[in-house]
Amino acid sequence: VEPAVEQVGERSGRPVVGIVGAGQLARMTIEAASALGINVILLAESAEDAATEFASQVLVGEPRDHGQLWALAARCDVITFDHEHVDLDQLATFEEAGVAVWPSVEAMHLGVDKAHMRATLVEAEIPVPAFVVLADTEGTGSVLDRLAAFGNGAGWPLVLKATRDGYDGKGVWPVADIGEAAIVCRRAHEEGIVLMAEELVPITAELCALVVRGPTGTSAWPVVQTHQVNGICREVSYPGTIPQDVADEAQRLAVRLADSIGLVGVMAVEMFLAKRRLVVNEVAVRPHNSGHWTIEGSNTSQFENHLRAILGLPLGTTEPRSPYAVMVNVLGDDEGTDPSLHLADALAVRGAHVHLYGKEPRPGRKLGHVTTCGIDPTDVRERAWQAARALRTPVPAAPATAASQ
Amino acid sequence: VEPAVEQVGERSGRPVVGIVGAGQLARMTIEAASALGINVILLAESAEDAATEFASQVLVGEPRDHGQLWALAARCDVITFDHEHVDLDQLATFEEAGVAVWPSVEAMHLGVDKAHMRATLVEAEIPVPAFVVLADTEGTGSVLDRLAAFGNGAGWPLVLKATRDGYDGKGVWPVADIGEAAIVCRRAHEEGIVLMAEELVPITAELCALVVRGPTGTSAWPVVQTHQVNGICREVSYPGTIPQDVADEAQRLAVRLADSIGLVGVMAVEMFLAKRRLVVNEVAVRPHNSGHWTIEGSNTSQFENHLRAILGLPLGTTEPRSPYAVMVNVLGDDEGTDPSLHLADALAVRGAHVHLYGKEPRPGRKLGHVTTCGIDPTDVRERAWQAARALRTPVPAAPATAASQ
Repeated sequence: VEPAVEQVGERSGRPVVGIVGAGQLARMTIEAASALGINVILLAESAEDAATEFASQVLVGEPRDHGQLWALAARCDVITFDHEHVDLDQLATFEEAGVAVWPSVEAMHLGVDKAHMRATLVEAEIPVPAFVVLADTEGTGSVLDRLAAFGNGAGWPLVLKATRDGYDGKGVWPVADIGEAAIVCRRAHEEGIVLMAEELVPITAELCALVVRGPTGTSAWPVVQTHQVNGICREVSYPGTIPQDVADEAQRLAVRLADSIGLVGVMAVEMFLAKRRLVVNEVAVRPHNSGHWTIEGSNTSQFENHLRAILGLPLGTTEPRSPYAVMVNVLGDDEGTDPSLHLADALAVRGAHVHLYGKEPRPGRKLGHVTTCGIDPTDVRERAWQAARALRTPVPAAPATAASQ
Repeated sequence: VEPAVEQVGERSGRPVVGIVGAGQLARMTIEAASALGINVILLAESAEDAATEFASQVLVGEPRDHGQLWALAARCDVITFDHEHVDLDQLATFEEAGVAVWPSVEAMHLGVDKAHMRATLVEAEIPVPAFVVLADTEGTGSVLDRLAAFGNGAGWPLVLKATRDGYDGKGVWPVADIGEAAIVCRRAHEEGIVLMAEELVPITAELCALVVRGPTGTSAWPVVQTHQVNGICREVSYPGTIPQDVADEAQRLAVRLADSIGLVGVMAVEMFLAKRRLVVNEVAVRPHNSGHWTIEGSNTSQFENHLRAILGLPLGTTEPRSPYAVMVNVLGDDEGTDPSLHLADALAVRGAHVHLYGKEPRPGRKLGHVTTCGIDPTDVRERAWQAARALRTPVPAAPATAASQ
């Protein structure tokens, strides 16, 4: 799959990018777009979404709203995405009609459907946890038979996952035995959810390899370590405690996947490390939470390079700017506090780069993040948490170092 | 003058900044504001101005439009400025009515009126070129008498300047003798322009000291060398060829001025170096072209720190991120080429941080800039110019190293 987007810059002097969705990823993309003289038009579900305050133009509608999608296509040079809650068949009709859609519908398929993603990885000879897709075309009985057989091989407990629409720990069910699994399977069957089962990996660490592919080739940012609590990313650290040879291998796998699917844009490949074994858990075919540190921490941010890639422009260099960087997410506290009220306290922390997304505060919601850079890893991490705590992010009960599947 | 802006963050969870003017300074301020969760509303002279595509809200009107200024004040926590084409008496009525206006009207006076600026500098014991203000309240004859007397002391040739509304070399007339001066004085009298005369300084180099002052004190970015051609800034280099002791002295003078006028916000102090003599030429009480390099070149950009200062938030650190940085302005060529058409060529230059302002191309107009950073000053400078040339900026006939008054 070769990108055919080189002509976009020639069609219009000032490029216009259309984004489906208007969350924080769109907002940070707009910040990068403004600098490059690129206009951004959004298809937002609500005029209150995070990115709407700063877009050149905002259309309001569902991400599957056919009329608004066409209105978006008519006003931009290329369509891209803030999230994966899209209808791939519908997008394929746009692609067939000659609308530039990047990442391509084929690439988006990886982010939308975990079963397809895992099959693609296996085909590209990229290691994944042992898994089986439990499509219940033959009824729940058949699903449980196949699950029991898989469990006999991979061992119990194992993990059930919805193949679509899961995020931040939603759509993931660890199950101890076939009895617990049967309950999840029955509910999934009732709700029309396709499940997959996978082995419970004895995770030592979680890492993420962020890459970008465009007309001038594929570039990779340094691999980061991520720290999840209850399925939600709390902290990202560069370089973290990942051994260099493991980080190198992770980067090679991500680049190989990008090349094998003909990616155009940014892709995040989330991996589990189990002692020395490296397996891919998740793939996001867009800028990703684990790459927010690149805004201040690397020469070119994931948002700028995503824009460059989808517009057929040369990619920027991805080297880090300092030896250590840490990003901590700012989640909503239980009282619904607006972190903006505590901006002064966070900015009082030396070198804290504060990002607030302008979202309505809700408990556990990602409302912003803080990045710090420096030469002393302990100091860098402490300052990031200090600023995030000032913004009232709940502090994990356990230190945010335990990995979770 | 003590800033009384600490309460702004308490009045509204999400701060809103109102900017009078909507040029590139406003545009880059918006990029910084978006990251911090700060909304920006503009009073733009035209809906086509550089910053309008990305503002939260845009009012269209002249910067002296009383009704629109009140509409702006009603919608924001603090009013600030993209330029100095304002009516200070009018702004004073806003300040008196309790509207937060930062920088204050008193500080803005320095940027609006060169005669007042020079008098303030003299009072603060900051060295300036020998000068005389030629207010012609007693007629042209009296002006020419005073000018002749000043010329006898300072020597001919000398420089006549309009005390208001000059920029980018406009409003500056070098004159060889009293005969040439008389022609300029007569025209100025007819047009109601107040002139000042100043000695022609034998400039070795031009430099600029950028400072920011807020509730937590005064911070200074490293002093830069600037290169003007025909009065227009073409290149800014950090640290340039300025001796360290001169740079230190320049920084001390700028900080002293900021403290003496009770500045709130960013201020750029442009200076001439004549061998070892340092004199202040110009003062801009706002973010400034000579500080664009701080976006990538320092820990906190001039735009972010301006926002922090006027909202009463703690300032960010101003250290440089790399040993060398160069910024080259992208001016419009004679053919009216849109630099956006050549974005791909500019981005192909390694490490080139390209900024395009989305302005209508016109010959000589500032349409964007390029910043490069690195460890080899020659390489850094060459890459900045390479990217700027790719964007079709005219290359100065003489190397852009000669200074001009």
